Amino acid sequence: MRFVIIGGDAAGMSAASRAKRNQFDLEVTVLEQTRDVSYSACGMPYNIADPNREIDDLVVREARVFREKQGIDLRTEHRVESIETHTKTIKGKTLKGEDFHLSYDKLLIATGASPIIPDLPGFDLPGIMALKSLEDGRRIKQFIRDNHVNKVVIIGMGYIALEMCEALRARDIEVHMVKPRPIFLPWMNEKLAAMVKEETEANGVKLYLGHTAERVKKADTGLRLICSDLELDCQMILLAIGVKPNSHLAENAGLQLGPQKTISVDKTLVTSNENVFAAGDCADTYHVVTGQKAWIPLALRANRAGWAVADNITGKRTELQGVAGTAVFKVFDLQVARTGLNVADAERYGFEPMEVMVQARTRAHAHPGSSTIGVQMVADKRSGRLLGVQMVGKEGAVHRINAPAVALHGKMTVEEFSQSDLAYAPPFGPVWDPMLTTANQLLKKM
Amino acid sequence: MRFVIIGGDAAGMSAASRAKRNQFDLEVTVLEQTRDVSYSACGMPYNIADPNREIDDLVVREARVFREKQGIDLRTEHRVESIETHTKTIKGKTLKGEDFHLSYDKLLIATGASPIIPDLPGFDLPGIMALKSLEDGRRIKQFIRDNHVNKVVIIGMGYIALEMCEALRARDIEVHMVKPRPIFLPWMNEKLAAMVKEETEANGVKLYLGHTAERVKKADTGLRLICSDLELDCQMILLAIGVKPNSHLAENAGLQLGPQKTISVDKTLVTSNENVFAAGDCADTYHVVTGQKAWIPLALRANRAGWAVADNITGKRTELQGVAGTAVFKVFDLQVARTGLNVADAERYGFEPMEVMVQARTRAHAHPGSSTIGVQMVADKRSGRLLGVQMVGKEGAVHRINAPAVALHGKMTVEEFSQSDLAYAPPFGPVWDPMLTTANQLLKKM
Repeated sequence: MRFVIIGGDAAGMSAASRAKRNQFDLEVTVLEQTRDVSYSACGMPYNIADPNREIDDLVVREARVFREKQGIDLRTEHRVESIETHTKTIKGKTLKGEDFHLSYDKLLIATGASPIIPDLPGFDLPGIMALKSLEDGRRIKQFIRDNHVNKVVIIGMGYIALEMCEALRARDIEVHMVKPRPIFLPWMNEKLAAMVKEETEANGVKLYLGHTAERVKKADTGLRLICSDLELDCQMILLAIGVKPNSHLAENAGLQLGPQKTISVDKTLVTSNENVFAAGDCADTYHVVTGQKAWIPLALRANRAGWAVADNITGKRTELQGVAGTAVFKVFDLQVARTGLNVADAERYGFEPMEVMVQARTRAHAHPGSSTIGVQMVADKRSGRLLGVQMVGKEGAVHRINAPAVALHGKMTVEEFSQSDLAYAPPFGPVWDPMLTTANQLLKKM
Repeated sequence: MRFVIIGGDAAGMSAASRAKRNQFDLEVTVLEQTRDVSYSACGMPYNIADPNREIDDLVVREARVFREKQGIDLRTEHRVESIETHTKTIKGKTLKGEDFHLSYDKLLIATGASPIIPDLPGFDLPGIMALKSLEDGRRIKQFIRDNHVNKVVIIGMGYIALEMCEALRARDIEVHMVKPRPIFLPWMNEKLAAMVKEETEANGVKLYLGHTAERVKKADTGLRLICSDLELDCQMILLAIGVKPNSHLAENAGLQLGPQKTISVDKTLVTSNENVFAAGDCADTYHVVTGQKAWIPLALRANRAGWAVADNITGKRTELQGVAGTAVFKVFDLQVARTGLNVADAERYGFEPMEVMVQARTRAHAHPGSSTIGVQMVADKRSGRLLGVQMVGKEGAVHRINAPAVALHGKMTVEEFSQSDLAYAPPFGPVWDPMLTTANQLLKKM
């Protein structure tokens, strides 16, 4: 049996490796359009922060290892251009321009997502960058070095934008951030978002909210970003507006699409065609809180889905229950964490959300080195069910979020969560963990 | 209605405050034998570590506040000596030797636990200390200062002993630790225990395992601890052998006792007498994994039980589901965390335990500052249920333990836990959180 995988990143290589581990005589072919496979994409901002590190440090396993040690037929610089499901074949072109075609018994589409590039004048000038592939990271690092970059404009203020602003500030580069909407981290509780905004500004980052980019032109410094009522000169513009799933191959092959044009899959990762799977950032998933389809393109989900595809193909049936929407990042000295739904999400999905936000301390009474941690919690008034948690603090926010994430998988009520036996020792928190204090406040309100 | 509380520490004062908040016209009397109420007992080692801090910094709320602002009839230096349940009265003596007696409608016994003091020759000499009450902490600090203590022997190697050895080392005091049993942290996975032992020894602490203390005598340096095959000179001996519940009042009043001579209570914290509650370190509890009674004297449980008693007395019926056995502490640069059962516990309660221990990294591939985190996981082979987790590492172990703790409350299987959507960002862990890696390994083994 031949298992063909389109895309050699997190989901694709996870599936390839595990399929081979599960069943060594399986013929596994991976077609990757770039020359890079298996790297820590999420590590790029931290690598860019350090001029002394090579971007290739992020490679987890070299192509050679997959080929020689694992027996995977890994073909880089192979771009797939079409899938024909009734003949079970794919066609494409190598980077050198050679046509290729291949038949499959089982196919995995793991084509990931691409950064959104606005279709506006000047957005194709050199020095306009996006960060998704390792090649993007390579190019950004090279550009900064070659042009002695000391001023960057970032368009977008999501988590990649914020991670990148920290990375650039670490290199003492001036950073200006621009976004069209007037609200900073709109998905976040207002007061928690204010904590993150304050931290960002305290680190010398200039934020311009409510400014829509219109065009870029060349300027003395390099580039000029022109918004309706703002002009910013810089040497490099980083686009961090968001990503879109690479689902065109699937769409053209007539496969069913899910939310935001992702490839629709069931819990076994099968698409609308029984021989075609999809996994990673190009595919949708179930959300364990809403029970509905969602698109949350994050690394753990991609790896997990890759494994599940491999298991399902090699006869070890696996269903994935879905995601809780857990996402975390670091901005300077702050940890930001979320899981589940915010109030707006909860309303959209028909819940009757109630919310509290509590500011507590990260260490026990009178313990030195304590700081503020903000915890927001959302519950459904009717059922009492816990729907989501957000946290911001200098310590303990990221690992704490795993507890409510597990509670969401377990469909616990706030009452049940409030009874959980959480950790306490003075260096790590108050007797009542900030999450318990928040749960208790929310119960009182309910 | 008069609500009388014996004991003004965590459980007692939590109950008193909450009862008054719930129902202001309730007459609430607290009888505390010492002069201290409402302090962070767990913070004492960290306070002792710093000669410039006063032990009274640990007082969370002063007696005056309880009396004047909260309207609680708080009587310190009042020692209760007997309870008569059929007349609903208690009798006692003040520190000045005056007799008192009091009738109650509802009584809470929150007498806590006391350190075990061996009944051996010389164990009553000055310089032999135990750490439980604020007065103990005061005495230890004073003794160290007055005697320029530079060498201490600690008997016991449990978590208080380890916290204290860190505290004393922070003051550059030589520390020798002695225990009769040959195994360091016997409740812990062997390899994890070895990590903790190594860290302790690396910080200059001398460990003597398998040595039973026989007597103490005066020596030139101050004291000499004599074991069968070991003699240690020092200025101070700290007893950290363990604690026993203060249940003699309850026992003499004919109330039913639970495991380890705790006071037996149901989920509403009622003892075998419907008008008498017990909470905190003197009372037993349910364990959510075994469903059986257990005694786990820790601070969160005491506070929570105090609140639940107050709620039940003021007409807001509350049942506590029980504890998961979560306990965490810090030893020098290591975080140690556990929740649920270890293999021996699991066997004792009729499970068929399987165990794995995985060593993973605390940060993502190629992220600077990474260190080793060890995660042990125990499951029941028959049901697939998660039974317990232990972790040791320099970062992230303590807050991570909350996730399996919640899973234990939710009676999740390892398979369910392994699917949970845990946090990932490079500064905080690998894509597959160490707990997920461990769960996956355990599933493979099962």
